[in-house]
Amino acid sequence: MSNPSAAMLVIGDEILSGRTRDSNMYYLAGELSHHGVDLKEVRVVSDDAAAIVAAVLSLSSAFDHVFTSGGIGPTHDDITADCIAEAFGVPIGVRGDARALLAAHYDAQSIPFNEARQRMARIPEGATLIDNPVSVAPGFTLRNVHVMAGVPQVFRAMVSSVLPTITGGAPLLSQSLRIDRGEGEIAGPLAHLASDFPDLTIGSYPFQRNGVYGANIVIRGQEGSRIDAAVLRLAKLFPEES
Amino acid sequence: MSNPSAAMLVIGDEILSGRTRDSNMYYLAGELSHHGVDLKEVRVVSDDAAAIVAAVLSLSSAFDHVFTSGGIGPTHDDITADCIAEAFGVPIGVRGDARALLAAHYDAQSIPFNEARQRMARIPEGATLIDNPVSVAPGFTLRNVHVMAGVPQVFRAMVSSVLPTITGGAPLLSQSLRIDRGEGEIAGPLAHLASDFPDLTIGSYPFQRNGVYGANIVIRGQEGSRIDAAVLRLAKLFPEES
Repeated sequence: MSNPSAAMLVIGDEILSGRTRDSNMYYLAGELSHHGVDLKEVRVVSDDAAAIVAAVLSLSSAFDHVFTSGGIGPTHDDITADCIAEAFGVPIGVRGDARALLAAHYDAQSIPFNEARQRMARIPEGATLIDNPVSVAPGFTLRNVHVMAGVPQVFRAMVSSVLPTITGGAPLLSQSLRIDRGEGEIAGPLAHLASDFPDLTIGSYPFQRNGVYGANIVIRGQEGSRIDAAVLRLAKLFPEES
Repeated sequence: MSNPSAAMLVIGDEILSGRTRDSNMYYLAGELSHHGVDLKEVRVVSDDAAAIVAAVLSLSSAFDHVFTSGGIGPTHDDITADCIAEAFGVPIGVRGDARALLAAHYDAQSIPFNEARQRMARIPEGATLIDNPVSVAPGFTLRNVHVMAGVPQVFRAMVSSVLPTITGGAPLLSQSLRIDRGEGEIAGPLAHLASDFPDLTIGSYPFQRNGVYGANIVIRGQEGSRIDAAVLRLAKLFPEES
C-alpha cells in the first residue's frame, strides 16, 4: 500500500527575494517523512492572488494533502485565506469561534482587538480550525488544504496540531553510506544495485571536500530488512568504506 | 520597464525527504535580485521524469528564464538532461566538445573516462554549454532553461557563468525597519503606506523573541528615492523605532 502524497505551498516574497533562507520546508519535509506521508512537490510563490489561487487548485487536485505556509497574519500582504476561499469558490468572513479565541487572547493582555487583528478571524466557510498554541490566531483546513502561518515557531506548532489528524502510512526509513570515491566510479555498480532493489530509492549525493571527491549514498524505503540488504550489498561493492 | 521574470526548478529527492536543507534556492534568489531578474516561483520536484518534464514545460512557458539545479551527474538518478530534451522534443547524445572537456580532465588525473563519466557529456541538441570551473562537467542552456548542477559549490560557479549572459533590469533595492510592536498594531498604518506607494512592495515579517512581538518591515523597489521616502514615512508613524 502506498503512502498518502503531499505538496507544500510556501507563500510570500521573503524567500523569492533572497531575504530569508527557508526553514519551514525543511521542517515539514522531515515531519512528513516520519509520519509516512510522501512529500512530492514544493512550490514557492509570491504574495500574488492569481499565483496563489492557481497553485492551490493545481496542487490540491494532484495530491492527497497540501500544506501551505505564510500569509495568514493581520497585514495587507496577508491574503492566503481569501485566496483559498476563492480557489474553492466558498464565502469567507469573520468566524465566531476564531473571533472568540482572539478576543479572549487580546482582552487578557489589555491589547485592543482592532480591525487588523479581527482580520485573522476570517476563515473560509466549511473549514476546520488548526490550533495555534503559540500566538492563538488559528490556521485552518479546508478540504485537503492545511493553511498554516509562516513564522517558524507558529508553523511548527500548527504542524504538530494538524499531523495527528492525518492518516499516514509507513514512515520512510533510510540508511546512508559515505563513499570516498568520485561518483563516476560509483555510478556503474550503483545502477545495478538500484535495478536489483526496485522497491527502494537509491540516491547519490556527491560532495567535494578538501580536494576529495565522494558521495553519500542514501537508500530509502519502507522495509527495514530490504534497506539492510541493499546497504550490505553496497558495502561489499566498496569494502574499504564499510 | 519591468525586469525579466524567472523561475527555479530544484530537482531531487534530498530536499523533499527532509535530508537536506536547501541552500541553492537561497543563493540564486539573492543573485537574481542583485542582477535585476525577478524570481517569481520556485518548484521542487523529485527525480521523476514525468514531474520534471511537466514542470519544465510549465515554467519555461510562463517565465522569461528557468534555472534548474540537480540531476546532471553520472549516476542512475541523474535524469535532468534527458528530461529537458524530452520536454522540448529534441534529440540528446554525447556531444563532442563536452566529451573533450571531460576526457582532458580525467586524462590529466589518470582517472578512467568510463561510461558513467561519459554520460555527463550527454547534451540536448541546440544547447549552449555552461562553464563549470569547479568540476568541469558542464551545465547547459536550452532555449530559456539554464540547467545546472545540484552540488552547492558547482551550482554557484555555474550561476556565475550564466548570469553575465542574461540581460537583467534594475536591481531590486530594499530597506528594512524593525518595529517592536505586534503586527496587529502595525497593520493599519502599513496598509495606508502600501496604498500610497503602489510602486513598492511592502512586506511585514513578524517575529516573536523573548516574549516580545515585533515585525521587520521590508520595503522593496527599483527606485532608491521612493524607498527612502517610504521608510521616512514609516519611521514617522512609529517614531520610537527610528
